[in-house]
Amino acid sequence: MTDRYEPFRVAARQASLDAIALVPGANFSRLFGTEFHQNERPLVVVIPVSGQPAAIVPNLELGSFEQLGFDGEVFDWRDQQGYQPAFDQLTKHLPLDSIGVEGQVMRVFVDQAFRQASPGLVIQDAQNAIAAIRLHKSDDELNAMRHAVAISEKALANTIDAVKVGMSERAIENVLVQNLFAHGAEDFAFSPIVAAAQNSAQPHAHSREDYHIAAGDSLLIDFGARAGGVCADITRTFFVQHCTDERADIYNTVLIANLAGHKASRPGATAHDVDDATTSVLESSAYGARIRHKTGHGLGRDIHEDPYIMRGNHQVLEPGMVFTIEPGLYDLDDIGVRIEDDVLITDSGSQSLTTFDKSLTFVG
Amino acid sequence: MTDRYEPFRVAARQASLDAIALVPGANFSRLFGTEFHQNERPLVVVIPVSGQPAAIVPNLELGSFEQLGFDGEVFDWRDQQGYQPAFDQLTKHLPLDSIGVEGQVMRVFVDQAFRQASPGLVIQDAQNAIAAIRLHKSDDELNAMRHAVAISEKALANTIDAVKVGMSERAIENVLVQNLFAHGAEDFAFSPIVAAAQNSAQPHAHSREDYHIAAGDSLLIDFGARAGGVCADITRTFFVQHCTDERADIYNTVLIANLAGHKASRPGATAHDVDDATTSVLESSAYGARIRHKTGHGLGRDIHEDPYIMRGNHQVLEPGMVFTIEPGLYDLDDIGVRIEDDVLITDSGSQSLTTFDKSLTFVG
Repeated sequence: MTDRYEPFRVAARQASLDAIALVPGANFSRLFGTEFHQNERPLVVVIPVSGQPAAIVPNLELGSFEQLGFDGEVFDWRDQQGYQPAFDQLTKHLPLDSIGVEGQVMRVFVDQAFRQASPGLVIQDAQNAIAAIRLHKSDDELNAMRHAVAISEKALANTIDAVKVGMSERAIENVLVQNLFAHGAEDFAFSPIVAAAQNSAQPHAHSREDYHIAAGDSLLIDFGARAGGVCADITRTFFVQHCTDERADIYNTVLIANLAGHKASRPGATAHDVDDATTSVLESSAYGARIRHKTGHGLGRDIHEDPYIMRGNHQVLEPGMVFTIEPGLYDLDDIGVRIEDDVLITDSGSQSLTTFDKSLTFVG
Repeated sequence: MTDRYEPFRVAARQASLDAIALVPGANFSRLFGTEFHQNERPLVVVIPVSGQPAAIVPNLELGSFEQLGFDGEVFDWRDQQGYQPAFDQLTKHLPLDSIGVEGQVMRVFVDQAFRQASPGLVIQDAQNAIAAIRLHKSDDELNAMRHAVAISEKALANTIDAVKVGMSERAIENVLVQNLFAHGAEDFAFSPIVAAAQNSAQPHAHSREDYHIAAGDSLLIDFGARAGGVCADITRTFFVQHCTDERADIYNTVLIANLAGHKASRPGATAHDVDDATTSVLESSAYGARIRHKTGHGLGRDIHEDPYIMRGNHQVLEPGMVFTIEPGLYDLDDIGVRIEDDVLITDSGSQSLTTFDKSLTFVG
């Protein structure tokens, strides 16, 4: 039987650390195959370079935790006594000089409880090494991602069929949300963005109750289902009834950039190469001043994860990696356009998990 | 004009700290009146004991950030250059020996960026002092909470009308979710729990696709809408068609404990008093061994916040505080029962925001 902790032990050894500490989140879910959520009660699994792991678990969660089949020592704690004694016990049971942690996931109070239990302990951000374990999706994860994308695309198709001039952004969002859950979403991958006209120029806009879409508006919809523990993430930008020639040109510029990103995505290329191919299209257009962000991000159990598709990131792309290609052009005095797909690196090139039509489309 | 940063400056002064650092989350939302979410890009506002605040903001978020009306220096950063230079600039602009942070919200990579920028900096967990600023709900927050509760209770009423013997837990959850968003939820307050029979004995259960409810089962539903930036949180436990006399007795024991908690909730009482009154009922019953958790938690912009309703917490309850009363009894070889209300401390006593019927109810 393989040691399921081995990838974490390797990460620790390569960074000359004594152990890796995991808290609930994407890495924890991949390891144990089930979802736990962070709350105000610390829960930590510590995986040493060799030997049995150990865990700190709120007493309240023991029942759920036991279902993970965890095979190490468990130090549980109750609200009435607090969590510090459990950290003291674990660091006594498993003497450590250094641990690697998920810097973007673990919170400061857990870090401080470790420091209090073991004042000399070196706590190093090992986010990249730990997250790298999830770079290659398993077949189960890929099947789940295809399912999450299918749910999302059905919801989007039903939503644009329902869009009418005069609807508020929020009303359109409500239709989208109803359809997402009707088609099998278990949660949002993130809060959906439904943004028209100038609001579409905010890369992370909130939908408005008091703005009603009008002919000529852009309508940007960026959302995704979470299902089976993984995320979909898709953006399409539509126009209400018609659009100016300039806006059509902006749209087509973003579409060409998107297609260039797909073309550059293949095993052996780097994340840098994909961003460069995509962003170069935008830069060489008349709208270079409207660039606001890099091309994309990895996608899986987390909505944003490695590999980040960004110039300067020389991560080599390999079969099984999944990321977004989402070029955009934004002008706060005008509109924003973004076209986002989810792309899987295959043995011979890449495959788009998202297949929703990308040609210039009018709604309402 | 009052200084909106004053409560944070007071918290810093009282802890002899030079500043408070806030990251997106409930405290940030209360301060600025709008919701921001944490992602892989650090965003931090630093409020010194006196003088202008300063902020570190991802360039991508500048548009949204400007809408907050922030009046201090902003150090923005782009993905390509990374965030460390912005931390270096901020700590140079605003020399600090010590900062208080939200230990349960701020993540380790932000903590480490501060330490790298300013090696001698003392970073203290000021979670309690910062969260205390939200102990007293504003009128706007209370109105929003009543609205979130109303959405949740309508969704629950429609759901139990639709429950039929033989439905899976997941199918019931889907009905609940559809109704939540149909009635105006903007998000989940947390992932809903729909758990029958033995699964209801897991305080944080996941709903199952493959378990179909049968006559005599318990059916525990714990969920809430998020709307207007705040949370509702309600649990009711039903029985499918009928239940044994012993289970009815367990149910009524939890109900009596719940009512005792309401009665003990008044200004001047402590969080300890409310837990003690509630838990004493459970302890003095035949089912004391089935107690698994404290009585409740504060509720507002966060689903779990101060005041925690727990023995040993001598926080005095004051008008405007809101918390849950949610006694439960659990046996992993039998069932779980929990009855949860959201309670507001008023000038003269308390008022239950949740009003859904609590008498023993049969469904299906």
